[in-house]
Amino acid sequence: MYGAVIHAPGDVRFEERADPVIVEPTDAVVRTVAACVCGSDLWRYRGVAPVPQPTPIGHEFCGVVEQVGDAVTTVKPGDFVVGGFNPGDNSCPVCRKGAQANCVNGAHYAGCQAEKIRIPFADGTLLTTPGVPTDEQLPAILTLSDVMCTGWHAAVSAGVAPGSSVAVVGDGAVGLCAVLASAQLGASTIIAMSRHDDRQALALRFGATHIVAERDEAGAEAVKKLTDGIGADCVLECVGTEGSRLQAIGCVRDGGNIGLVGVPHGDLPVNELFWRNVGVRGGPAHCRAYLPELLELVWDGVIDPAPVFDLQLPLADVAEAHAAMDSRRAVKVLLRP
Amino acid sequence: MYGAVIHAPGDVRFEERADPVIVEPTDAVVRTVAACVCGSDLWRYRGVAPVPQPTPIGHEFCGVVEQVGDAVTTVKPGDFVVGGFNPGDNSCPVCRKGAQANCVNGAHYAGCQAEKIRIPFADGTLLTTPGVPTDEQLPAILTLSDVMCTGWHAAVSAGVAPGSSVAVVGDGAVGLCAVLASAQLGASTIIAMSRHDDRQALALRFGATHIVAERDEAGAEAVKKLTDGIGADCVLECVGTEGSRLQAIGCVRDGGNIGLVGVPHGDLPVNELFWRNVGVRGGPAHCRAYLPELLELVWDGVIDPAPVFDLQLPLADVAEAHAAMDSRRAVKVLLRP
Repeated sequence: MYGAVIHAPGDVRFEERADPVIVEPTDAVVRTVAACVCGSDLWRYRGVAPVPQPTPIGHEFCGVVEQVGDAVTTVKPGDFVVGGFNPGDNSCPVCRKGAQANCVNGAHYAGCQAEKIRIPFADGTLLTTPGVPTDEQLPAILTLSDVMCTGWHAAVSAGVAPGSSVAVVGDGAVGLCAVLASAQLGASTIIAMSRHDDRQALALRFGATHIVAERDEAGAEAVKKLTDGIGADCVLECVGTEGSRLQAIGCVRDGGNIGLVGVPHGDLPVNELFWRNVGVRGGPAHCRAYLPELLELVWDGVIDPAPVFDLQLPLADVAEAHAAMDSRRAVKVLLRP
Repeated sequence: MYGAVIHAPGDVRFEERADPVIVEPTDAVVRTVAACVCGSDLWRYRGVAPVPQPTPIGHEFCGVVEQVGDAVTTVKPGDFVVGGFNPGDNSCPVCRKGAQANCVNGAHYAGCQAEKIRIPFADGTLLTTPGVPTDEQLPAILTLSDVMCTGWHAAVSAGVAPGSSVAVVGDGAVGLCAVLASAQLGASTIIAMSRHDDRQALALRFGATHIVAERDEAGAEAVKKLTDGIGADCVLECVGTEGSRLQAIGCVRDGGNIGLVGVPHGDLPVNELFWRNVGVRGGPAHCRAYLPELLELVWDGVIDPAPVFDLQLPLADVAEAHAAMDSRRAVKVLLRP
């Protein structure tokens, strides 16, 4: 089969790889129907994270089960499935607490931007969709493998609830999904911080009630003006830079919460957070915890995160997909074999 | 009147001070019936915090209202009252969100280890007890001015709920109250980390199910053994040192929460917290938010935090009260005029 391999920064190749096989009795092999490129894939593409050797890349997919190991009981060949980016057993003591991203047996995929994928812990990882999705349904289903779960995790981590005021820092696919999640969770004020017209428009379509184009201190002041002068109950930090985190701290009200899903670089000013009673919580999304509810919401058309994909390409053009996202010509690229 | 004034580290004097008067129409003047010394008072006593000039000291009290300003409507002369250590208006936008410790008009007392106290924002700060407390009831009522609210805040900040596993770092009055709060909130496993016999005994009396005497990594390992190998759902950090915070991080499970009420010194390892999905939340207690419920629980005898006081002295012996706590001869000292 063919799949994407990153060889060096800027060098992603679609090349022949060994067909995945069942290694453990809990494995499945899935034939990819759609995959995509994640903002986090760009770390290596941009040389921010190292590429010590050629490595298969990608962790978002949906597709059809081809084979299952002897121990797999909840999915079978022919099922259309989606799984989160962080496979796990969904049965260890940490998973049973609802923290499946931190499964004590948590595993990784060997590259999902490929024609076929080996899925570790198939029972713990995969969900079968209620039917075979149409071409129109496919993009929304695919978001469940990462960005929709991650945006949801930001909102859940920050305690977004009916009536909350929310500010979202970051207007990438995750930030936009965080807007959609906040609306679904009942937030009454949702401030999308963005200075790109197209992303602002999408944020409004996803439920944002206000747009703030300013950044840093000016951005925080604009958020305060929209929130009774005190800042937002919940700030969803969907970037991960030092600047975005400081902006989040500036936008949150005393006694509020910051949901972190941007991988943090730099320090947290714990003394300020303490005196202001600001909570910080987040990390990689507990996809398996959220998937049943989110799959139902997407399947029933209650939420539609599909518009985060603004470019579709053949899987063979995976190098161009990375280049398009790197140069910001696309928010997120969907790939089909 | 007479009251305590700290002149320098180790130098607390009971001396004549001006009688407090009504300054703002929202003020009250309270005649002290009981006051006490806080662990945080020892920062200046020990020279950890500066004493730039002689300063009245103390922020915990209960007593009888003597006078009220023209704008005060909820308490009247003769009422027996208790108030949190952080007076506020309980009506600003932040207070209305339940974050009264961060009232935008928040004020301070000019020393509560005194015969009389001026109370700013009397309506927002004071609660009248259902009756005049007996001598036996008095210590428990007095804990509501700080330590019981602060222990409760640690538990609430960490999300302690029915069935939670909890580890409490710190066996001072606040840590012991955090044990009591966790039991009241329905935690099923409560691990008190203490290596002092008398405090261990009190923790067990307050509802601890286990004692761990080890500290640091050994302490974290012992907590994991008691929690299915993964660590506690909620860790209540009631000390505030770098070591205690690292111990808390070692004791919490992935996906769990740390409630901080020890004033933090040092940094938070945000990258580790992120990958482990560990939340951190806390700060000064929202006393006014908790007081109605806690006063009812204490008045009805459902919880009895009184045993945190292990020494009673006349208010005039306030210097000895500080010395006894500084030398750890007492956990917490109650003072009566």
